[in-house]
Amino acid sequence: MSAPLSPIPGTIHGVGLGPGAPDLLSVRADRLVRGASHVAYFRKAGRPGQARRIAEGMLRPDVVEIAMEYPVTTEIPFSDPRYNERLSAFYAQCTQRLVALSAAGEDVVVLCEGDPFFYGSFMHLHSRLSGLAPVEVVPGITGMAGAWNATGLPITWGDDVLTVAMATLPEDELVRRIRDTDALVVMKIGRNLPKLIRAVAQAGRADEAWLVEYAAMPEQRVTPLAQASSVTPYFSILLIHGKGRRP
Amino acid sequence: MSAPLSPIPGTIHGVGLGPGAPDLLSVRADRLVRGASHVAYFRKAGRPGQARRIAEGMLRPDVVEIAMEYPVTTEIPFSDPRYNERLSAFYAQCTQRLVALSAAGEDVVVLCEGDPFFYGSFMHLHSRLSGLAPVEVVPGITGMAGAWNATGLPITWGDDVLTVAMATLPEDELVRRIRDTDALVVMKIGRNLPKLIRAVAQAGRADEAWLVEYAAMPEQRVTPLAQASSVTPYFSILLIHGKGRRP
Repeated sequence: MSAPLSPIPGTIHGVGLGPGAPDLLSVRADRLVRGASHVAYFRKAGRPGQARRIAEGMLRPDVVEIAMEYPVTTEIPFSDPRYNERLSAFYAQCTQRLVALSAAGEDVVVLCEGDPFFYGSFMHLHSRLSGLAPVEVVPGITGMAGAWNATGLPITWGDDVLTVAMATLPEDELVRRIRDTDALVVMKIGRNLPKLIRAVAQAGRADEAWLVEYAAMPEQRVTPLAQASSVTPYFSILLIHGKGRRP
Repeated sequence: MSAPLSPIPGTIHGVGLGPGAPDLLSVRADRLVRGASHVAYFRKAGRPGQARRIAEGMLRPDVVEIAMEYPVTTEIPFSDPRYNERLSAFYAQCTQRLVALSAAGEDVVVLCEGDPFFYGSFMHLHSRLSGLAPVEVVPGITGMAGAWNATGLPITWGDDVLTVAMATLPEDELVRRIRDTDALVVMKIGRNLPKLIRAVAQAGRADEAWLVEYAAMPEQRVTPLAQASSVTPYFSILLIHGKGRRP
């Protein structure tokens, strides 16, 4: 008597969807998303989810969707240990679900905005999936590349130094970083916009800064920071273009 | 009597091809490259050119190819004013050629490695084409995203600061930058590798650094910097991964 056959484990694909336009997925990502029997994606409770929104119109009619809803986003501050605990339990639970699908022989495409290995949530699954299921990652065009493309100007020239920083950093740290770089990208702006505006001004670079909202999406908007309103959506990126060597 | 009709000016497309794999072009870039009647690309004299190499097998059989060969690369140091003069004349000449094609009604796809607005040569045409021909830019997956994907590890987590610097910077400046960042990307390595190895060691981060050569290409190689030989090709990127917040 032989044991019942176990299926070949399915692969979990972390797929970068790029900044937002459906034709800015890579050819490899496009094929995986359109062919997927199972897709998973993160979203805030009650929201469609940005990654899912990019894939709208691309999915198979019979696709199985797995919405992974963050248990906390802004109710608990980062500094509270309960923030990490709750998120950690959430990622462990999502991992379990994906591992079970893989064990049942199903491939799953995890939809990721931008590039999966660049400040993304997928990384928290990736580190947990290691050894439990086959994982493949498809890089994507980053949101910041979508943003500087939206301004119509190159971000870096010659020997420019580019600094990428999160607006969640302390204000004096932001000031120091903004002073000490040629080109700048700031993400995770949201409620940190007033702090960021002060930091850019204190660094003496208010006239060089641009705010890009919804890069590569129909609502795309590029505003000089000096004219930015005090409220900005989460999908916004601040840019200062480099001014390096130009033969 | 009416004047002879002028054709509608053709568009010059600066198209990001991504890090090297043919299926890592965006869907938009793939369509443009495969449909192009005219493609242009930079290359060193006597070399096939990296951008042209990525597009191999994708071009129309009747495509017109415009190879733009750099007049100088390493013979004259950056600091010599003749370097800038000769490059400037070269870019002006390439621009003239593209403007003439546009005026004749031809669209031209300029093949660009990585992302056209991120340390690329296309930017030097873009700034000169302004007002002379319609220009469209298609962003691409950067070479550095190809490199961190090759290591199988995320480059940035949580509030990590990422610094992108060129190995052409002075050694003490490199040391300072490498000390003062969470995650690091260094490009334009080539003959600067010995200097870069010294700078990473002096910053106390030799054990964290990886050298990625030919990311996303068949020759891809990922080496701990400590084991890197003293000669490395130009298509190499140094990475230090961030270690930020991981719930």
